[in-house]
Amino acid sequence: MIVVMKQGAAPAQVDHVIQRIEQLGLRSHVIEGTELTVVAALGEKRDGAKQALETIEGVDKVVPILAPYKMASTEVKKEPTVVEARNLKVGGGNVGVIAGPCSVESREQILEVAQIVREAGATGLRGGAFKPRTSPYSFQGLKEKGLQLLAEARDATGLAIVTEIMASEHIGMVARYADVLQVGARNMQNYPLLEAVGESGLPVLLKRGPSATMDEFLLAAEYILKTGNTKVMLCERGIRTFEDHTRFTLPLASVPYLHEKTHLPVVVDPSHGTGKASLVAAMARAAIAAGADGLIVEIHPNPDKALSDGFQALTPTQFKQMMSECKKLAQCMEKIKA
Amino acid sequence: MIVVMKQGAAPAQVDHVIQRIEQLGLRSHVIEGTELTVVAALGEKRDGAKQALETIEGVDKVVPILAPYKMASTEVKKEPTVVEARNLKVGGGNVGVIAGPCSVESREQILEVAQIVREAGATGLRGGAFKPRTSPYSFQGLKEKGLQLLAEARDATGLAIVTEIMASEHIGMVARYADVLQVGARNMQNYPLLEAVGESGLPVLLKRGPSATMDEFLLAAEYILKTGNTKVMLCERGIRTFEDHTRFTLPLASVPYLHEKTHLPVVVDPSHGTGKASLVAAMARAAIAAGADGLIVEIHPNPDKALSDGFQALTPTQFKQMMSECKKLAQCMEKIKA
Amino acid sequence: MIVVMKQGAAPAQVDHVIQRIEQLGLRSHVIEGTELTVVAALGEKRDGAKQALETIEGVDKVVPILAPYKMASTEVKKEPTVVEARNLKVGGGNVGVIAGPCSVESREQILEVAQIVREAGATGLRGGAFKPRTSPYSFQGLKEKGLQLLAEARDATGLAIVTEIMASEHIGMVARYADVLQVGARNMQNYPLLEAVGESGLPVLLKRGPSATMDEFLLAAEYILKTGNTKVMLCERGIRTFEDHTRFTLPLASVPYLHEKTHLPVVVDPSHGTGKASLVAAMARAAIAAGADGLIVEIHPNPDKALSDGFQALTPTQFKQMMSECKKLAQCMEKIKA
Amino acid sequence: MIVVMKQGAAPAQVDHVIQRIEQLGLRSHVIEGTELTVVAALGEKRDGAKQALETIEGVDKVVPILAPYKMASTEVKKEPTVVEARNLKVGGGNVGVIAGPCSVESREQILEVAQIVREAGATGLRGGAFKPRTSPYSFQGLKEKGLQLLAEARDATGLAIVTEIMASEHIGMVARYADVLQVGARNMQNYPLLEAVGESGLPVLLKRGPSATMDEFLLAAEYILKTGNTKVMLCERGIRTFEDHTRFTLPLASVPYLHEKTHLPVVVDPSHGTGKASLVAAMARAAIAAGADGLIVEIHPNPDKALSDGFQALTPTQFKQMMSECKKLAQCMEKIKA
Repeated sequence: MIVVMKQGAAPAQVDHVIQRIEQLGLRSHVIEGTELTVVAALGEKRDGAKQALETIEGVDKVVPILAPYKMASTEVKKEPTVVEARNLKVGGGNVGVIAGPCSVESREQILEVAQIVREAGATGLRGGAFKPRTSPYSFQGLKEKGLQLLAEARDATGLAIVTEIMASEHIGMVARYADVLQVGARNMQNYPLLEAVGESGLPVLLKRGPSATMDEFLLAAEYILKTGNTKVMLCERGIRTFEDHTRFTLPLASVPYLHEKTHLPVVVDPSHGTGKASLVAAMARAAIAAGADGLIVEIHPNPDKALSDGFQALTPTQFKQMMSECKKLAQCMEKIKA
Repeated sequence: MIVVMKQGAAPAQVDHVIQRIEQLGLRSHVIEGTELTVVAALGEKRDGAKQALETIEGVDKVVPILAPYKMASTEVKKEPTVVEARNLKVGGGNVGVIAGPCSVESREQILEVAQIVREAGATGLRGGAFKPRTSPYSFQGLKEKGLQLLAEARDATGLAIVTEIMASEHIGMVARYADVLQVGARNMQNYPLLEAVGESGLPVLLKRGPSATMDEFLLAAEYILKTGNTKVMLCERGIRTFEDHTRFTLPLASVPYLHEKTHLPVVVDPSHGTGKASLVAAMARAAIAAGADGLIVEIHPNPDKALSDGFQALTPTQFKQMMSECKKLAQCMEKIKA
Repeated sequence: MIVVMKQGAAPAQVDHVIQRIEQLGLRSHVIEGTELTVVAALGEKRDGAKQALETIEGVDKVVPILAPYKMASTEVKKEPTVVEARNLKVGGGNVGVIAGPCSVESREQILEVAQIVREAGATGLRGGAFKPRTSPYSFQGLKEKGLQLLAEARDATGLAIVTEIMASEHIGMVARYADVLQVGARNMQNYPLLEAVGESGLPVLLKRGPSATMDEFLLAAEYILKTGNTKVMLCERGIRTFEDHTRFTLPLASVPYLHEKTHLPVVVDPSHGTGKASLVAAMARAAIAAGADGLIVEIHPNPDKALSDGFQALTPTQFKQMMSECKKLAQCMEKIKA
Repeated sequence: MIVVMKQGAAPAQVDHVIQRIEQLGLRSHVIEGTELTVVAALGEKRDGAKQALETIEGVDKVVPILAPYKMASTEVKKEPTVVEARNLKVGGGNVGVIAGPCSVESREQILEVAQIVREAGATGLRGGAFKPRTSPYSFQGLKEKGLQLLAEARDATGLAIVTEIMASEHIGMVARYADVLQVGARNMQNYPLLEAVGESGLPVLLKRGPSATMDEFLLAAEYILKTGNTKVMLCERGIRTFEDHTRFTLPLASVPYLHEKTHLPVVVDPSHGTGKASLVAAMARAAIAAGADGLIVEIHPNPDKALSDGFQALTPTQFKQMMSECKKLAQCMEKIKA
């Protein structure tokens, strides 16, 4: 950390900073500049020290130098992590596609979708059984019944089941049916839930919160990794900005940025990221070209009858088209990287 | 709702929309414009219909007309809700002030702060026992021990205890010690938690998520109100924007806007809202002048030794000064409103 | 337009709205809903009417239905516009690449870069002669001398020269040397400048302002189109959001969205859009896969000696690599679209 | 500046950084930490050096330490600047109020408004003669005719005239009629215009761009100050964020923050800052309580007939009420500051 003193800070204030740095178990190093003084605080401790120094009188600001996450960092592990669940393989050169409806609505619906997903060449089936809905008056999911239908769809197709978990107390139940636990954007900083999914030992798809920075996102992953569960997929699903022509803004630079900083694979969700079916295929292609390790896409056999989020779901025909385009691009990307 | 058809939409597409509107239990009304056609969907149903209509072929967009929340709305209850807990009174002309440290750190610290809070004229004591921290390596709170210290501080001062709840399974324990349950910004859309705090019957301080719209904020309150618990205080604590000279951007227009839309009282948090001690008093004054029903402020007897967020905490002297200024402004506001 | 009345609006207020709509030369149509009344205002007039209606007592809000731009719209012209300048061809299936340094710094620098650009297969040369700089203490460009060097580089390579124009009074001079006038993000809503570049008759590269909505962007283009100059390229160069790991957030969904709404070609600037050389190639690839009609990229023979923005410039080697990747992806995209 | 090397940077890379720092006329100072090395660059030079260092191989990031603006800074001038124009006095304990219509529409309108403004106790009259409008199809102002009407209103009332300038070539004409030149938010970074208004010698009201950081805002002021014209008022008028219940988000923490960093006075525009007449008075009060040196407010004798932005204009009655409230609060603030 670099402690920047205010212009005209008194020598006694600088001494106070030095003393505090040493109390924190760090080494200090003073640099007197033309206009002001900075003090470097050296050592391994990352936590709490910044706040402790920031409030000392005469201090202007404290600039951290090291990334706050560790286990997620490429500093700690260089080779990419590959997450697998049945035939779904994400990371390390594998591009896994997960598709399905926003919510499981009926046996007929989920079985039909699962066939479409498999035929188009994807290996994961998404579908919400417990649905976090902005309004308490919206459809909240079929709950355990929905999980049973997902499991039935898996038995019929071999697809890996990816479904959202909203509360720690559901983990036992959900783990009986699902292959991958999804933590939704609203719960990215629900720390007890992160620890609980970590402890389940199952692969986790962690969605970025709509106002989370990259550091916050990686620290949320760190909560899971700390339990010893390293099967974490990061999912970029769009952030909240002033843009109003899309539901969220999908910032694909996250993909190469995360690949620099972490060994964890990065999945992109162009459905929530745009909120408009007509933009999904273009953004799926762009995600592949940016180097994404996977896609998660909403489809529905009959979007205009969907009980939730139908406006962003692809029809089966649109999805097949998207898959065909993405496969071509993925092959092209393989040549580029080779 | 108003369904706007695309230019050149076929008559059969308009018919499909009409048919779907009627299936949803609504009445339809077609308006043929110079350049395009719109169909009004009339009736009381607010949920799901928008999505169902949005995906029909030929539809350009669906514009909702009614607010999505009900019980929180001034349409339903005109007179302001007053939330009380011991001597803390928030709403309906009462400006309640809650102050205290970010985290409970020790018996000595919390008892000292509680005396300062009471002497300065505030009636609520805040203090975290369970702390949601961005990093898993940060101090996570004293947990039940912290709650016991808060209760001891209440016994000594009569202040109402306001403390954060992070998981449904802690509610029984926390409710034994606290007077008001705080739902933090990270958990604003943790719906199982909202339902659980609602069912506790205790007053709730609900913090706005940093990327929540007003509708999302009021719908989160609606999850609590739906349990029958009407003792909900809304807390504006800043939103995430591009601004980097403050920790968050504190948008005080929320205060008069919420007063138009809801009967629930509005509390402002200038400490998290700015993240800088030197800006807190000015924003506390501004909140009062904007009509806020309460303030929640971080103070610390010795900010540079705080275990969390010390940089935004006021010293006891700064807090007394702020309270004196806010009292003068509150009196001035009473005359203005009279 | 749809005028939504407040709940409980008086019949006289509705009458006032109807009367005002007719004064504006529009037709009115009243729809009485279960909970409130809406009035549709029908006709061709798009301007001013919204504001005039919005302030009538009893009106809750006015919802526009038609897009506010006309000449830029695909409603008016379906076939894509192709903008050409020398060998640079952008739009209608042509992907044009413009590359070069942030600023023209010396004869040697710009001639060297121009050779690199041409050899790598790009057809446009960018380079600032007049530089808008956030700080008045920063290098402001070589001005006319810079333009002369650009012209010399064009003579040597045949590349089309793209350079920024900051003030109407410079247009005469700049037009003597440049092939394409660039309007920078800071000047996207400098309307006298937009009109002046329009009247020059030269092709224009219009950069999106960092907080401009799509409607504002297209209306800025409309200022140029209205002069009769239809050679307008829209350039997505990133928006300002809370993200701090990149200089701006590059929202590539703009590309397919703009293709739906306008016939004008869309160029992407991954250099400003990310602000980090290491992320540029991935975002250039993503832009191509999203369907962009062109790229504008910063390169520098020796980025660490650049007088401005060196941190986001590609080295010649990186640029060649990027071009090779983008060509492969562009070929792949041609097959996909075919 | 602090140059942070990547973990594992080679000693030769560190040497390269040191060498480059010295070439830039700065002194270097190496600090070897536990996990990585940082190099401090000491000296007075603020410009270009950051970029030059940022791109050297092995460098992770460069952290600037000094504020980039000088003449605007309280480091250079401690006592607050007071800007005066006729009876309008802004800064140094004076709270000046400027009010008037968005656009000058007619002789009758502007004379009527001017009387209302004076009677309510304000000392500045705003009114647009040249209007920057998002759409080329919107009313663009009465131009010189409008300026003449403003001058007539000044003769009748003694109010100082504040009007927007959109192009350098208009300055001669506008300066014949106006007392204060306003630079609009869209032109905050139109540097030739900033220099031209600076050279006019007239007081300037500089509006913050909707996505400008505080540093960018102060650097825009610096462009004016550099011409020798120190009569600059900064105007906070709201920023663009995801919030959609207001037109912009009005971040009042700018007021105390700017008072810490600059001696220039700070004016708040609650009309554009909220975009809703019903929220204006509350935010005007809040601005005063936050310590603002002035207000600029839109009023209209008949808002529902306004040719632009009527929805955010106060009626004469609402304005008188607002003025009465603000006076009481300003008196209260005087006691607080005394």
